[in-house]
Amino acid sequence: MQGQAQQQAYDRGITIFSPDGRLYQVEYAREAVKRGTASIGVRTSDGVVLAADKRSRSPLMEPTSVEKIHKADDHVGIASAGHVADARQLIDFARRQSQVNRLRYGEPIGIETLTKEVTDHIQQYTQVGGARPFGVALLIGGVENGSPRLYETDPSGTPYEWKAVAIGADRGDHQEHLEENYSDDLTLEEGIALALEAIAATAENGTIAPDGIDVATVSAESERFVELSNEDIEEHLVANDLLATEDEDDESDEE
Amino acid sequence: MQGQAQQQAYDRGITIFSPDGRLYQVEYAREAVKRGTASIGVRTSDGVVLAADKRSRSPLMEPTSVEKIHKADDHVGIASAGHVADARQLIDFARRQSQVNRLRYGEPIGIETLTKEVTDHIQQYTQVGGARPFGVALLIGGVENGSPRLYETDPSGTPYEWKAVAIGADRGDHQEHLEENYSDDLTLEEGIALALEAIAATAENGTIAPDGIDVATVSAESERFVELSNEDIEEHLVANDLLATEDEDDESDEE
Amino acid sequence: MQGQAQQQAYDRGITIFSPDGRLYQVEYAREAVKRGTASIGVRTSDGVVLAADKRSRSPLMEPTSVEKIHKADDHVGIASAGHVADARQLIDFARRQSQVNRLRYGEPIGIETLTKEVTDHIQQYTQVGGARPFGVALLIGGVENGSPRLYETDPSGTPYEWKAVAIGADRGDHQEHLEENYSDDLTLEEGIALALEAIAATAENGTIAPDGIDVATVSAESERFVELSNEDIEEHLVANDLLATEDEDDESDEE
Amino acid sequence: MQGQAQQQAYDRGITIFSPDGRLYQVEYAREAVKRGTASIGVRTSDGVVLAADKRSRSPLMEPTSVEKIHKADDHVGIASAGHVADARQLIDFARRQSQVNRLRYGEPIGIETLTKEVTDHIQQYTQVGGARPFGVALLIGGVENGSPRLYETDPSGTPYEWKAVAIGADRGDHQEHLEENYSDDLTLEEGIALALEAIAATAENGTIAPDGIDVATVSAESERFVELSNEDIEEHLVANDLLATEDEDDESDEE
Amino acid sequence: MQGQAQQQAYDRGITIFSPDGRLYQVEYAREAVKRGTASIGVRTSDGVVLAADKRSRSPLMEPTSVEKIHKADDHVGIASAGHVADARQLIDFARRQSQVNRLRYGEPIGIETLTKEVTDHIQQYTQVGGARPFGVALLIGGVENGSPRLYETDPSGTPYEWKAVAIGADRGDHQEHLEENYSDDLTLEEGIALALEAIAATAENGTIAPDGIDVATVSAESERFVELSNEDIEEHLVANDLLATEDEDDESDEE
Amino acid sequence: MQGQAQQQAYDRGITIFSPDGRLYQVEYAREAVKRGTASIGVRTSDGVVLAADKRSRSPLMEPTSVEKIHKADDHVGIASAGHVADARQLIDFARRQSQVNRLRYGEPIGIETLTKEVTDHIQQYTQVGGARPFGVALLIGGVENGSPRLYETDPSGTPYEWKAVAIGADRGDHQEHLEENYSDDLTLEEGIALALEAIAATAENGTIAPDGIDVATVSAESERFVELSNEDIEEHLVANDLLATEDEDDESDEE
Amino acid sequence: MQGQAQQQAYDRGITIFSPDGRLYQVEYAREAVKRGTASIGVRTSDGVVLAADKRSRSPLMEPTSVEKIHKADDHVGIASAGHVADARQLIDFARRQSQVNRLRYGEPIGIETLTKEVTDHIQQYTQVGGARPFGVALLIGGVENGSPRLYETDPSGTPYEWKAVAIGADRGDHQEHLEENYSDDLTLEEGIALALEAIAATAENGTIAPDGIDVATVSAESERFVELSNEDIEEHLVANDLLATEDEDDESDEE
Repeated sequence: MQGQAQQQAYDRGITIFSPDGRLYQVEYAREAVKRGTASIGVRTSDGVVLAADKRSRSPLMEPTSVEKIHKADDHVGIASAGHVADARQLIDFARRQSQVNRLRYGEPIGIETLTKEVTDHIQQYTQVGGARPFGVALLIGGVENGSPRLYETDPSGTPYEWKAVAIGADRGDHQEHLEENYSDDLTLEEGIALALEAIAATAENGTIAPDGIDVATVSAESERFVELSNEDIEEHLVANDLLATEDEDDESDEE
Repeated sequence: MQGQAQQQAYDRGITIFSPDGRLYQVEYAREAVKRGTASIGVRTSDGVVLAADKRSRSPLMEPTSVEKIHKADDHVGIASAGHVADARQLIDFARRQSQVNRLRYGEPIGIETLTKEVTDHIQQYTQVGGARPFGVALLIGGVENGSPRLYETDPSGTPYEWKAVAIGADRGDHQEHLEENYSDDLTLEEGIALALEAIAATAENGTIAPDGIDVATVSAESERFVELSNEDIEEHLVANDLLATEDEDDESDEE
Repeated sequence: MQGQAQQQAYDRGITIFSPDGRLYQVEYAREAVKRGTASIGVRTSDGVVLAADKRSRSPLMEPTSVEKIHKADDHVGIASAGHVADARQLIDFARRQSQVNRLRYGEPIGIETLTKEVTDHIQQYTQVGGARPFGVALLIGGVENGSPRLYETDPSGTPYEWKAVAIGADRGDHQEHLEENYSDDLTLEEGIALALEAIAATAENGTIAPDGIDVATVSAESERFVELSNEDIEEHLVANDLLATEDEDDESDEE
Repeated sequence: MQGQAQQQAYDRGITIFSPDGRLYQVEYAREAVKRGTASIGVRTSDGVVLAADKRSRSPLMEPTSVEKIHKADDHVGIASAGHVADARQLIDFARRQSQVNRLRYGEPIGIETLTKEVTDHIQQYTQVGGARPFGVALLIGGVENGSPRLYETDPSGTPYEWKAVAIGADRGDHQEHLEENYSDDLTLEEGIALALEAIAATAENGTIAPDGIDVATVSAESERFVELSNEDIEEHLVANDLLATEDEDDESDEE
Repeated sequence: MQGQAQQQAYDRGITIFSPDGRLYQVEYAREAVKRGTASIGVRTSDGVVLAADKRSRSPLMEPTSVEKIHKADDHVGIASAGHVADARQLIDFARRQSQVNRLRYGEPIGIETLTKEVTDHIQQYTQVGGARPFGVALLIGGVENGSPRLYETDPSGTPYEWKAVAIGADRGDHQEHLEENYSDDLTLEEGIALALEAIAATAENGTIAPDGIDVATVSAESERFVELSNEDIEEHLVANDLLATEDEDDESDEE
Repeated sequence: MQGQAQQQAYDRGITIFSPDGRLYQVEYAREAVKRGTASIGVRTSDGVVLAADKRSRSPLMEPTSVEKIHKADDHVGIASAGHVADARQLIDFARRQSQVNRLRYGEPIGIETLTKEVTDHIQQYTQVGGARPFGVALLIGGVENGSPRLYETDPSGTPYEWKAVAIGADRGDHQEHLEENYSDDLTLEEGIALALEAIAATAENGTIAPDGIDVATVSAESERFVELSNEDIEEHLVANDLLATEDEDDESDEE
Repeated sequence: MQGQAQQQAYDRGITIFSPDGRLYQVEYAREAVKRGTASIGVRTSDGVVLAADKRSRSPLMEPTSVEKIHKADDHVGIASAGHVADARQLIDFARRQSQVNRLRYGEPIGIETLTKEVTDHIQQYTQVGGARPFGVALLIGGVENGSPRLYETDPSGTPYEWKAVAIGADRGDHQEHLEENYSDDLTLEEGIALALEAIAATAENGTIAPDGIDVATVSAESERFVELSNEDIEEHLVANDLLATEDEDDESDEE
């Protein structure tokens, strides 16, 4: 481990190696991810669930404006944690890749293919000078040939495939909750419940307000990305005894 | 000049992550926003209101020369806070995007679409080297398919949608005033009053001079951007008991 | 406010934001403007007046060689304060824009349009790396659709419209003089007198030598830029009791 | 040898020589390799074996997502140690080169040719500015004209050919194990056993879990890259008395 | 590789503003001018005189090799003070501009036009990064439409028109001599005498050796650049009682 | 001569001159050469001999993989000392130049011509920014028009022609041995012996293992590059009483 | 004059002006010239003589390999002092310019023209960023229209014409010798003797070995560059009583 003073020498300008082989700009970009509110993905046998904690700076902000789950293609959704403006760039990149794939091959892009195109794009920003790394992690969930798939991209440009995963603030606690409660035979409904419980576990009072969270699914059957309405989310929260009243939050551009 | 600039950037204090995951140049650009005089947006059911505090360096300066609210297209207005010259670049960018949209699709650009094209443009200046971020926040207000919409862009390139929002100096106080007094059933007239009250709340003596403020509206019915004349503004100020005499101010290129 | 040492970190290389949201290179360029001799513009109902204090390094220097007022087009004049070589670049830029406008649209360029094309050009040099800002302010005066117009451009790239304005050395005193003595019903002759008085107010003995000053007008009627001869200037100085003998000055490339 | 302070001067920005003729960025990239989990290659008379230690951050991560051995072409496999995202770039580069060779010459690319194209690519990143070196070492194994071949690439861009080699964490211990136990007449089965034993030698309890390891072969006869299933690996572990239960590991983007 | 390298150079001690609005690199370039031996220009009613002090490092150096006055076109001569190699670049630039003018318009280039093309070229090197300013001042003298004209260019890229002017070492003393002795009704012969006297005034013993000086004229009548022979110069020196014996000087690349 | 501290200022980033006229990056690149194992060239009347000390990091490394002598064309061989990956780039460059020469002129490239093309390439990397110098020296040996020729290239890009020369570690001792024992009437066999003796002179016990050395020749008669087999080398070692057992060596990317 | 510490700030990276108007990188490049062995040029009425001191690192180095005088064209020779690899670049540049001239105009290039093309090339490297200056001085000697001409180029890119001149180590002493002994009526033979005497004057024992020196001539009659053989040189040394035995020298890349 480097001391404070030495560390400073390796974290400026272009992304370069420190004496112990680390890329500090990439590690600092991971810190930007941790500063963002959590997103959680759960893969079940009949679909993928994406859930995201979101916070509004003011009751006057439109809830949709802090949406953290986006449709990348009919069969793919993306949740993010970290620097919001960076997330938007990557999501737009993913959307363009999806469209190009449909145009070229006449079929929906594979979830793994899409993930790797995104991570290749991210890696370039960690090796070639003239730009900083992307300060955001993504969860890319969808259905490929009838099978639900769930991937994570991190700021180094590495893709990971998961059964269930958390990114952003309190990742440690969330992931622990998922590991303890995940089983391979979850239904999509149970997957939603698991994701909500994980988020609620670190929330104040252990409860969540419907407009403080985004939930979306891609079911294996429909192969369609669907965002749950506030009413749907409220039903799930009630059913799992997690319903709270509205909360407020501080200003931040990490979500 | 853009292409050339991207090549130039290989070892400057370009916008990079700090060890705790922050982008200081972006945060400093936010300070430039706070140095500017306030702008306020209010969305009502029958239209959007933009109001901006403006200060003249001298009684000999033409009031229009310190205008802080600009027409981006027939149905869209933009107010700004922060570095004036930067604001002008972004407003011109928005105007060009609006025109391109009309040419390509034969219809007015959507307010959200316009906002996201502007924020994509802003984000590039925070990630790719060779340029500094834009030191300005914008309020983009207009009507889309008959519905009033109000967006904010910040120096990180993040778009937010609002019912009512303040940017620039005294944002905290202004936003608090909006939150306490906003209701979903405001008329456009009441929206104007709310915006004026918010600005007056932090003004000396709690009053405003008509030529110290810009007000513009886009009504849901007309879908037309309209700037209020000094006489109109004075009527509103009188009606709300906010009328003051002229004030003076120090030299600054943040407004 | 920043300490001396911290400030230094933000004023080198590319123009970037300081922690309190300032662009030091732009502020330093404003200092270059203050180092230049004064220029004054006065807009009257029947025309615009530009007057400029000029100093010769030697009695052997040709007076025209230190001219500070230039014709940009038949109907537009430009006065400057600050770095002379920079001023020449911007004036040439303005001339080219004026010619292009005539070629494209078959009509003289608007004064506001011209000003904004110049300020857009200036702003680029404050945001994109690889060059320093322009160290000069301009007064652009002319007639547009029969109406006299007077604009100022500053090193940040912000345009201002004025009734009467001073740039360069002693701006504070000059502007105060203008504010105290300006009235909307000035004739062009009275405008010339006002400008000369303002300059004389800070001159030694309160008087001016004819070859120590440039004066030009664009009258609303003729829409033609006219430079006053030394004899004309002398008449105005005599009439206003401001005539002095020749003065000398130190070497400087700011005027 | 340089002291600590002097060393710091030579490891920033572009890759340059230190006074004693070293390239610190390249040496630091080698540290990134050592931070990664081990990969081992063994060449036998009837084929090449690649084996890689892999660790999962969580039991919920898909084992395939941490795969460290990749098929580059029908007859070539690549194992890596170090920065995962960098490895993926080089493996993609190798795949493209393989495809280009088939298109141009209608035959599979030679293992040595492929290795040298990869190392040329790596060397460029150590000499020309604007990018950092690749923080990864590769083992490239395959069959060329019926003969098994095994190469290593390091971050300097040097290719080495080996009978048996280890890269990544604990390289010293692994290589020692290989040197003591390698013989030229190993069968492919025995080669697999040797690779597993080497990895197990530094593992906790000297045993390995089947899903904690990747194994692949290219046999001289088939000239086909084949990844062993978990069941196959388990059989090999049982047969060599190396079978363990699952282990867990900390988060890292070096593998 | 050349092209690439030129792009990379934009981050170094580029010419920027100091906190008090000065451009130090330009001011330092002015020091380079002062380090050079003097050149003097005198405009008379019937022609322009250029005279230049020159020093040889050794009696074996060819006098022509230290010539400081050059023919730019049939009707234009240029004298310089400062960095010799830079002077040669600008003189070549001036020659090319003169030739281009003849080709385009079929007539000799105006002296003012030529000067401004040179100063525009110089200014670019003070604003755009990747190069240092020119460390040289020029005197451009010639005849335009029958009238003698004399211009100075300085390292900032500012043009000045003069009746009589000195650049280089001892400028202050030389200019003072010119101011005290210049009159508008000088003949060309008297102009030559004035220039020689000015140089002699600061020389050792107040005398000049013929081969220690260059003199050239462009007469209004001939409109032809003519260099005086050593014999001609000697005659002028004798006639004005300024003749000295040879002097020697130290090595320098400023002249 | 510079002190330690000042020296540091001149050896970073681009290759520039120190106050005493030295290019430190080039000198440091020479240190990289000295870190490499030795190569020796001997020119005899009937051919050129290249011999190179080589070390393997492990008995499992293929001897060919540490080959230090390469065929550049039928009639040219190249030995190297220093940074291996750099050597490979230059050798590839030499091969391409040789092929181009055959294509253009239908004949083998001259040894001097080839050497100078290589040194021109090397020099560019010492003068133009954006890359470091090559950290390697080469011996280029071959036959041109029936005459054996032997050249050295160094990191500054200077070519030298030799009768016999050593590069790399212990150059001083090796060269001394060559100078004391070289004579112009050596046969090719005697040249091989001389090269082996020189290397053995600094080896442990004064003996060499056949697989610890590369030897190649280009005879004047055949004009063909020939690498000696281990058996051939062993015969030579036995004949000269220099045969040793295998040695081992530490890890290094300089050879 | 600057202190030691301030000076350091102006001699790094790109070539820029110091506060007292100096270009340190150019001055340091001149130091590189002084580190090289001497070259001397003498112009006589019937031809030009070039002579160069050269030193071999070892008796095994081919004398031709340290040649310091090169043929640029049939009628032009070039001697150098300073960084050898830089000299080779400039000599190649001169050769290409000579060939281009023959192709374009069907006649040999003028010596002055050639010199100025070389110095223009050198000057670019002192003003535009991304490269260091050339660390070498050249003597360009030849015959133009029947007249012998002798030029010097220095690292600033300034051309000088000489009757007789020395560059490199001990320039002061050599030049003094030339000044004391040169006369305009020297024959070519006497010119050779003068050059040899000058070099011998600073040599050990005041004598020179034939293989420690290069001598070449371009006679006015033949207009052909001729290198003297060792035998010819020896005859001249004997005739002038300057013959010595072989000397040795230390390793250096300046000659």
